[in-house]
Amino acid sequence: MSNDNKFKSINWTGKSLILLDQRKIPFSREFLECKSLEMVIFAIKNMIVRGAPAIALSGIYGIALYLLEIKEKPDFLEFEKRLKNLLESRPTAVNLKLALERYSSLISKEKFNNNSLEYITSETIEFANLIFNEDLELNRRIANNGTFLFPEDKKNISILTHCNTGALATAGIGTAIGVIRALKNKGYNLTVYASETRPYHQGSRLTAWELKEEEIECFIIGDSMSAWLMNDRKIDAVLVGADRITKNGDTANKIGTLSHAIIAKNFNIPFYVAASSTSFDFNLENGNQIHIEMRSEDELTQNSFLKDENGKNYIPQGVLSPLGAKALNPSFDVTPSKYISGIITEKGVISPVNINNIKSIIGTND
Amino acid sequence: MSNDNKFKSINWTGKSLILLDQRKIPFSREFLECKSLEMVIFAIKNMIVRGAPAIALSGIYGIALYLLEIKEKPDFLEFEKRLKNLLESRPTAVNLKLALERYSSLISKEKFNNNSLEYITSETIEFANLIFNEDLELNRRIANNGTFLFPEDKKNISILTHCNTGALATAGIGTAIGVIRALKNKGYNLTVYASETRPYHQGSRLTAWELKEEEIECFIIGDSMSAWLMNDRKIDAVLVGADRITKNGDTANKIGTLSHAIIAKNFNIPFYVAASSTSFDFNLENGNQIHIEMRSEDELTQNSFLKDENGKNYIPQGVLSPLGAKALNPSFDVTPSKYISGIITEKGVISPVNINNIKSIIGTND
Repeated sequence: MSNDNKFKSINWTGKSLILLDQRKIPFSREFLECKSLEMVIFAIKNMIVRGAPAIALSGIYGIALYLLEIKEKPDFLEFEKRLKNLLESRPTAVNLKLALERYSSLISKEKFNNNSLEYITSETIEFANLIFNEDLELNRRIANNGTFLFPEDKKNISILTHCNTGALATAGIGTAIGVIRALKNKGYNLTVYASETRPYHQGSRLTAWELKEEEIECFIIGDSMSAWLMNDRKIDAVLVGADRITKNGDTANKIGTLSHAIIAKNFNIPFYVAASSTSFDFNLENGNQIHIEMRSEDELTQNSFLKDENGKNYIPQGVLSPLGAKALNPSFDVTPSKYISGIITEKGVISPVNINNIKSIIGTND
Repeated sequence: MSNDNKFKSINWTGKSLILLDQRKIPFSREFLECKSLEMVIFAIKNMIVRGAPAIALSGIYGIALYLLEIKEKPDFLEFEKRLKNLLESRPTAVNLKLALERYSSLISKEKFNNNSLEYITSETIEFANLIFNEDLELNRRIANNGTFLFPEDKKNISILTHCNTGALATAGIGTAIGVIRALKNKGYNLTVYASETRPYHQGSRLTAWELKEEEIECFIIGDSMSAWLMNDRKIDAVLVGADRITKNGDTANKIGTLSHAIIAKNFNIPFYVAASSTSFDFNLENGNQIHIEMRSEDELTQNSFLKDENGKNYIPQGVLSPLGAKALNPSFDVTPSKYISGIITEKGVISPVNINNIKSIIGTND
């Protein structure tokens, strides 16, 4: 293990995958030991593990668990069905899809059929470890590239961030939070505003916690307060992550990102996306083609993902909203590239964001 | 009592003021009987009663309670001190300030000194009843004027509203929600999206409840979802209330209003403020002069205003945010007039919103 992620949010033991239960942070630090692919899928669906890169890594380790668990090599069709189940666990982020595509070209039908279960298993674990270590390195490079967007002669920097893009969402130091960590290491005095990110509270629970552990000053704000904030205080940049970026730079990210982007543009504040090339989906022309996951109304109307030690919702039905109230709970939104000042990748910063600049920095499959 | 407010959110008994406890809605319908000015101030500060018009009415009834409680007429200075305490209970909304100004010119120092306690008390109660009935009538007229902003030949209308501007916030049918009620009465099919309004959840708790009682279709959304909503669905208008409107039309309203307004302008969706002339503060040139109330961090980091039957926070410290986390909790923001398509008042719709149009429709003290 590297020192980039002291929280050990994703930990492969060789026989199981130990995930930090992100529903319990910051209140308690509990780990879920997954011994089967089903458990990993459960953990992804229920956001025990979350963040596009972390979901991809967990998923591939989940395949390894499936192969470790079975006694006999199954039909390739049966195997493919498991991969499909995994892929469908959460539809919006692209990282898992791309990781599965790489995996499928590594473990082709022919290779699967012509080799022993032990061999396929060992190749799978090796691939999972590979992309885990790749993610560590991607994080470091994104973070480093991001720091050059801030003037060297400025000491104090204020950043608004949304959701959680740190060590809890990745293998390493994170994407947008990785940039924040790197800025701190470069000697800047940072003030970070974390929008709480309803309904799952990735901002107030996870980002505020990570930044506290890193001793970076952080103020939680309500998601609705970003316009007030950008008007009231000097904000140098908005920094967010990405779940899927299309060919033209349109970016799906946690619900609320589009609101922050429109407001930032209104106030002429730079709006940056920090993401690796593994977040780009060159099969999609633009953001209209991204499928947005709609999650349970109860997350919003009851904070239902938060349970006490007995597994009961903290807030009874009917307290946060009337019984039977209807709600919409899109988990992501799509920010058109025109609102994005730059995409910070491991290969450099794409700015302005357009097809050509993306092609020349990331390269495409065209 | 009129039938305009079936919830009886503010109920004067002649000896006490019975307030619907808005912290408990929708879970339970509990009333707090205030028998002193101190209790009324407590209720205002703790948002047991809320909404700019409702605060003003409760405050004046609170003065009546003070006069009923004391045995002997106090010094006028002492009396004025009580009024000042009341005024400072919540600083942003102007309605209480204007009501107190009217009251002070009715009960001048001379009148106070030259008349019996009984007489002053009876004048005070009469004045409170007068402005209560005025508010009922203002609501009806605002609602009626607002309906003309929607095309007659359109059957289905979708509206985004923020916070709660209904019968819980006023004496009558409400301001923005009053318009929604009137549209329903005119035969439109309405779909209302209520943004939940963190941290106090006026949207998901109060507006969703009021609209359910009125059998108007309502979907709760997170505050961060308004850009997604305006992009994804056809929204005909955003309708909000106001806590204070300055000479040039800049409008203080519940935190999150400015975000919705900027986003609505981005999508070319009309953004209307519904408010009576009692929301205008002609002493202020523009929104920069409005004092924004900052409330306790705990409201955001712990949902601390929500208590179970034993008075305990539903959500323990450290669950929604790390122990000791810092937060900013402005209770209002200011929307510059350039983002406001029109202000719907009892005297007509001000559009475009500028000093001259405000002067000609509302009149000023100039």
